Amino acid sequence: MQYRKELDKINSYKPGKPIEELRRQKKLTKIYKLASNEIPFQPAFIKNVVNKELKNINRYPESTCFYLRDKLAKNFKINPDSIVFGNGSDEIITLALKAFIDKKDEVIIAYPSFLVYQIQAEIFGAKVIKVPLENYSYCLGKIAKKITKKTKIIFIANPDNPTGTYINQEKMDDFLKKVPKDVLLFFDEAYFEFAPEDFPKSIEILTRRKNMIIARTFSKAYGLAGLRIGYGITSKKIAQLLNKVREPFNVNRIAQVSAQAALENKDFVKKVVSFINKEKSYLYKNLDRLGVFYPKSATNFILVDFKKDTKKLYEYMLDQGIIIRELSGWGLGNFFRVTVGTRTQNRKFIKSFENYIRRIRK
Amino acid sequence: MQYRKELDKINSYKPGKPIEELRRQKKLTKIYKLASNEIPFQPAFIKNVVNKELKNINRYPESTCFYLRDKLAKNFKINPDSIVFGNGSDEIITLALKAFIDKKDEVIIAYPSFLVYQIQAEIFGAKVIKVPLENYSYCLGKIAKKITKKTKIIFIANPDNPTGTYINQEKMDDFLKKVPKDVLLFFDEAYFEFAPEDFPKSIEILTRRKNMIIARTFSKAYGLAGLRIGYGITSKKIAQLLNKVREPFNVNRIAQVSAQAALENKDFVKKVVSFINKEKSYLYKNLDRLGVFYPKSATNFILVDFKKDTKKLYEYMLDQGIIIRELSGWGLGNFFRVTVGTRTQNRKFIKSFENYIRRIRK
Repeated sequence: MQYRKELDKINSYKPGKPIEELRRQKKLTKIYKLASNEIPFQPAFIKNVVNKELKNINRYPESTCFYLRDKLAKNFKINPDSIVFGNGSDEIITLALKAFIDKKDEVIIAYPSFLVYQIQAEIFGAKVIKVPLENYSYCLGKIAKKITKKTKIIFIANPDNPTGTYINQEKMDDFLKKVPKDVLLFFDEAYFEFAPEDFPKSIEILTRRKNMIIARTFSKAYGLAGLRIGYGITSKKIAQLLNKVREPFNVNRIAQVSAQAALENKDFVKKVVSFINKEKSYLYKNLDRLGVFYPKSATNFILVDFKKDTKKLYEYMLDQGIIIRELSGWGLGNFFRVTVGTRTQNRKFIKSFENYIRRIRK
Repeated sequence: MQYRKELDKINSYKPGKPIEELRRQKKLTKIYKLASNEIPFQPAFIKNVVNKELKNINRYPESTCFYLRDKLAKNFKINPDSIVFGNGSDEIITLALKAFIDKKDEVIIAYPSFLVYQIQAEIFGAKVIKVPLENYSYCLGKIAKKITKKTKIIFIANPDNPTGTYINQEKMDDFLKKVPKDVLLFFDEAYFEFAPEDFPKSIEILTRRKNMIIARTFSKAYGLAGLRIGYGITSKKIAQLLNKVREPFNVNRIAQVSAQAALENKDFVKKVVSFINKEKSYLYKNLDRLGVFYPKSATNFILVDFKKDTKKLYEYMLDQGIIIRELSGWGLGNFFRVTVGTRTQNRKFIKSFENYIRRIRK
């Protein structure tokens, strides 16, 4: 079979264990998933628009996401033609690679960071240059030093996943001076709604530096992960290129109308963010009490440095009905990542974690 | 900007005009879309499962489409691991190219046929060999003759789009003898539910010839185009490869549960097919009366040979609120494609078409 032999070297992305899967494996009445940085509630307000849209479900969606595009453009005061929609912001990543990468081109990523950059870049035949994090953060100075004539894209997860740290405006401005204009900067801002005030004003940066894509999503703060919709804000020219390489009907109808409703219900995200911040404080306080280290997070998840292998902890948690994220795929075997949940979920997580620590100390 | 310069040569796919778009352009109360081979009704039975699934909408979908996979495997009596799901069957096409095509590999297509094969193959850097149709049908003998050592994939739309013709079991068996084992055969069977009895038993062929993908969809006979879900049936090895190159959450939750419901409501597709056949006869009869030629269709659409440019006809129809498909993008400027609709829609189409013919004859 004549498939591309490079694929043999590629390790697939391993998602957080779905609730449904754990339910199939263990007989548990309550399962708390704190593994995939989903918010712990649904935006109930989409129910009406979803039901209304069912009457059009036999029809292909609008390829351009016309109404959503219009609403989003007004929301950010940008040109509608500078937006690209994706089947989740994951797809914005692959579209950028598909439009920009020829074999052996170089892509720079931080390591460890969001795994999809490396996986998809390698699938598209790129040479991936990894720059280690320092003190749980992107080391932009070292990234800039790795730029060569072959560098096509630099992926910057800001805030970062799985560390939860972020790059502020000042550091970003400094970095921008060092990046040649012909290098595409890809800012993955999946968690930007959770980030603090000194977070870079990337849309404003885009007015000065066109060769850039800002990827955002309705999957996190908006609570629409199950529908698959994300977007890229970029220059008109790059939007055109990404639209050229995507499939014509990549965003389903339900996602389009729900994302519109989400933009109309701005209070929801505000409430989500303040809820998450409060619960994050609760988790911080308890993790401090347990004496474990974590970098401060600008997101809705926390990376915990357990200082020893977390495989057994992960399994123990599953037995308790709690799904956390084990990070061996990131080379972080001594860490785990936990998503901020409801108070009930967070309390149960802390209690189980505490019990586990006691058990292994005995 | 260092994007892939090959993209400059690529013409994007132009979808049929959406109802919403025509509504924005013209003040019309009734719009009939007969442009994208959608069936003219909705599967109302999905309402319950969709509403139930909304409570999980903040959670990512299962990457494996576990329950749907299980149901589909039982439906076709195949191994669940031999199925790949896509964001529409369009995505199965791009996944195959992504897994198999290195630059300058050859891909064979018939011309004109479904445009996405050529567009996406060229985006992935393939050299596309086009074999002209003969008498509105695939000429399999000539396709076989174009196979070289560089041939990676042969795309066969069966039934074909935009002609509506099909290849029967006998002709397919004959063709299979001529295709080397290391060439991937891609059978695009988006319309197979509408095809007659002597249609090739492709799942049975797959048991003998592993290097094959059968792409099918819930967008046509099942009436779920707005949700985006299709699938490929293939060998376990190829399913693994396609799963490796896809994004982890490519099929949304609403599509997964609705497709499951669709498989449980088998009567729906039966009713759709018999409805379409009846209405197709109505259209045939009237097209005969008007003296225009069309090849007999094994699908829910008809290709009409108008013998003169159809641009003005297309515009006239839009003014009447009827969207047909003009085919200049296929090099078929003298043809149009019309989807079989309800009796009201078909009658209105025939009436408007007849009026147009009278007008230009004056």
